[in-house]
Amino acid sequence: MDNEKKAAKHKASMEKQKSNVDANIERADVERGLVLLLTGDGKGKSSSAFGMAIRSLGYDYKVGIVQFIKGEILSGEEIFIRDKHPEVAFYQMGTGFTWNTQDRDGDIAAAEKTWQQALTMLQDESLHLVVLDEITYMLAYKYLDEDMIIDAINNRPTEQTVVLTGRGGGKAIRELADTVSEINDVKHAFRAGLKARKGVDF
Amino acid sequence: MDNEKKAAKHKASMEKQKSNVDANIERADVERGLVLLLTGDGKGKSSSAFGMAIRSLGYDYKVGIVQFIKGEILSGEEIFIRDKHPEVAFYQMGTGFTWNTQDRDGDIAAAEKTWQQALTMLQDESLHLVVLDEITYMLAYKYLDEDMIIDAINNRPTEQTVVLTGRGGGKAIRELADTVSEINDVKHAFRAGLKARKGVDF
Repeated sequence: MDNEKKAAKHKASMEKQKSNVDANIERADVERGLVLLLTGDGKGKSSSAFGMAIRSLGYDYKVGIVQFIKGEILSGEEIFIRDKHPEVAFYQMGTGFTWNTQDRDGDIAAAEKTWQQALTMLQDESLHLVVLDEITYMLAYKYLDEDMIIDAINNRPTEQTVVLTGRGGGKAIRELADTVSEINDVKHAFRAGLKARKGVDF
Repeated sequence: MDNEKKAAKHKASMEKQKSNVDANIERADVERGLVLLLTGDGKGKSSSAFGMAIRSLGYDYKVGIVQFIKGEILSGEEIFIRDKHPEVAFYQMGTGFTWNTQDRDGDIAAAEKTWQQALTMLQDESLHLVVLDEITYMLAYKYLDEDMIIDAINNRPTEQTVVLTGRGGGKAIRELADTVSEINDVKHAFRAGLKARKGVDF
């Protein structure tokens, strides 16, 4: 096929794609805050949530981030938010991974305290985006009550978007979510013997 | 099961998990920059790449971002980087989606110009992380030569990490990547008639 034909074929195919895209945009007419679940075993869930946080910050919207589990050692994006964007409401459970604490009652107390911070954000109309990072583990370990979390999300301000991250998530959370992305671990450097890297993995 | 038994069972299970985690960390001893591919049809690929960028920025590492395709209208994370983090080397192809331009030859010229920017970053030892956002489409449409891209990535500075995003990616890129996360579209608000939202979707 010569270049002219290629260009014409490309144009026809792109015209069709554009009309499909436009028709879909036309149909999508409900405006409200969303619930997003970023789940799966692959690398990129929390990074994606932080990426959405800066997407909101780009428009000077107010953002809240609550991190469950993480926090014994700060990772790069947490240092970034703390040091360079103190305008973000940021709270960390700060007990580290549950396989390090090995203390169920202590973990539950920390989870409940952290949830209070999340609840305050879920009632705050000024927040455009609330990230509840790694919250699914609180449900998997039964540290927090699922119905309590679902009620709070359902009763949030209409314009507020909530991003939930973590493996699993359960049927009720998946039903609640407007968008569910499952990040699958096709390949991970770690398994090939590559060391976790500062500024990439933490 | 009473609470004491639950706590003991939890502790035993967490001890086992911790020893597995520790053994895996022990085994992973190769240190160098990584190649990550964020692919799949689901929402979150570019957000995740921007999340990794701020992870690097948290440690004051230098970051470069090149966006292929995107850029006719800036989205939130791009405004954020441009306005609040001018220390990031940031280049956009700026022609918009290929189904909007409908001009194959123009797209190819823009892709080649954009690739020159990417190549400069892939040769710059001072950059800890280079994001090539949406580059897979340049390969899918054959706007850029795959071997040329793979060679440039293989010849990058040892300490540099490269993040590639976009649907597909092809066999050779998947083999080149140390880590591949495939973000699957389990559910998308758009299909339920919810309008794309500023600060969430763009």
